[in-house]
Amino acid sequence: MRKLKRNERIAAMVKILSDQPNKIFTLNFFTEKFNSAKSTISEDIVVVKQTMEKMELGRIETFSGAAGGVKFIPQTTIEQNKEILNEIAIKLSEGERILPGGFMYMTDVIYSPHIIHRIGEVFASQFNYKNVDYIITVETKGIPLAFMVAKAMNLPLVILRRDNKVTEGSTVSINYVSGSSGKLQRMSLSRRAIKPGARVIIIDDFMKAGGTAKGTIDMMREFDAHVEGVGVLIATKEPEVKLINDYISLLVLEEVKEKDQVINIYPNPKLIS
Amino acid sequence: MRKLKRNERIAAMVKILSDQPNKIFTLNFFTEKFNSAKSTISEDIVVVKQTMEKMELGRIETFSGAAGGVKFIPQTTIEQNKEILNEIAIKLSEGERILPGGFMYMTDVIYSPHIIHRIGEVFASQFNYKNVDYIITVETKGIPLAFMVAKAMNLPLVILRRDNKVTEGSTVSINYVSGSSGKLQRMSLSRRAIKPGARVIIIDDFMKAGGTAKGTIDMMREFDAHVEGVGVLIATKEPEVKLINDYISLLVLEEVKEKDQVINIYPNPKLIS
Repeated sequence: MRKLKRNERIAAMVKILSDQPNKIFTLNFFTEKFNSAKSTISEDIVVVKQTMEKMELGRIETFSGAAGGVKFIPQTTIEQNKEILNEIAIKLSEGERILPGGFMYMTDVIYSPHIIHRIGEVFASQFNYKNVDYIITVETKGIPLAFMVAKAMNLPLVILRRDNKVTEGSTVSINYVSGSSGKLQRMSLSRRAIKPGARVIIIDDFMKAGGTAKGTIDMMREFDAHVEGVGVLIATKEPEVKLINDYISLLVLEEVKEKDQVINIYPNPKLIS
Repeated sequence: MRKLKRNERIAAMVKILSDQPNKIFTLNFFTEKFNSAKSTISEDIVVVKQTMEKMELGRIETFSGAAGGVKFIPQTTIEQNKEILNEIAIKLSEGERILPGGFMYMTDVIYSPHIIHRIGEVFASQFNYKNVDYIITVETKGIPLAFMVAKAMNLPLVILRRDNKVTEGSTVSINYVSGSSGKLQRMSLSRRAIKPGARVIIIDDFMKAGGTAKGTIDMMREFDAHVEGVGVLIATKEPEVKLINDYISLLVLEEVKEKDQVINIYPNPKLIS
């Protein structure tokens, strides 16, 4: 292959780095791919790093030494959080989303790749996941969200199931109480899914009383896993005291007035100021 | 903001385009973002386009006229298909994946962001999705995969549920027969999830007899939706005659020999030659 121009190397480098956030690429990887000297690649990386920072498109981190290399770290600014969270809040405020019983139809939003890709980056900017091993979620609605967080952090996703499946092998099952309905529920997880002593972050789409999150934490105890953080897209304002204390929610759902067809939802003030 | 250099514009442009495949960005978007003339941006696009093609990182398409602009289209080569599908086949061939009953443990692979991101691009290269409106899947294991296909194609994902949920509003439910076990199963979908007359592509992780895929097609009929394609990550070799004829599988599972601890799985020859 003929040598690439700087422009071309930079274009390819940005594509490769940003496709796989938080994966370290060695300098050798790029010298071979681009048929270029190490010093040339180092200069390219400086340009990419400066541009990402200047344009607020994320961060580039470099590591020297034998295990050295470069990686792309997704990072959103407060301004960007404001923009995406406001966009979602406005979408979810549409009165026709109200369902019988005061529930809110939101699957179109939380299954939208465009929105959820950006939400993955917002979450990745909120947690310290340096030593985290897995992203955990409970089926079903939170899966796309949790998967995009996992992608942004370059971590495997683990999905807790509502029932046992033959395709999971031997499983651990627990009962837990749904905080809002008081109903007894069950979740299960394959024994192979998590290595002992792992560190995990729990991600879900919605939290009311926190029963599912608490159940998930209980399940993690069965695997000797440490919960390093809990993140939800939306938490209801009431009850203010939830079954777990320590969590991050991106949006706050204050109320759904079924009669007036009004939904009051807004970005978590902590994330946008 | 001071004017950006060409290098910097190109780095930012690649990041923005490849983060949102198949979304059209107008030239104005970039002239404003980069504070540059239209002719300058057009030249940048040519560089990005040539680089993506030369490095086989996907395609850039430009549109002239009032609705003009530029978009990035993920596209994998046969060589790239070979690499990623072989990587998965080797991983899934590990004997310790065999579960009692001859099932194969594979959630670690199909929940891996790194692997599934690339599989999303492989699927996007197999289908003509120009006029498609939704990606459809059935919960649970296929969701990350279907979501990454949806992201690569810039389409909303729709998830069929096994049971009714209060958070879905009024739903349509159907019964279907699982092709392999012969058991009667149920799936449901919110009435709001799909607009009438829509075109859809169905994506799932695994197909044996094709019962779930056929059930999904039946469900689409209830919504007057047209099924434009069916894609599965893995199809079993037996039964060779499945309940549906027209589908693409990326891998073929020939057999799981429980006694010998051997799994025989390989890339679909059509995709790698």
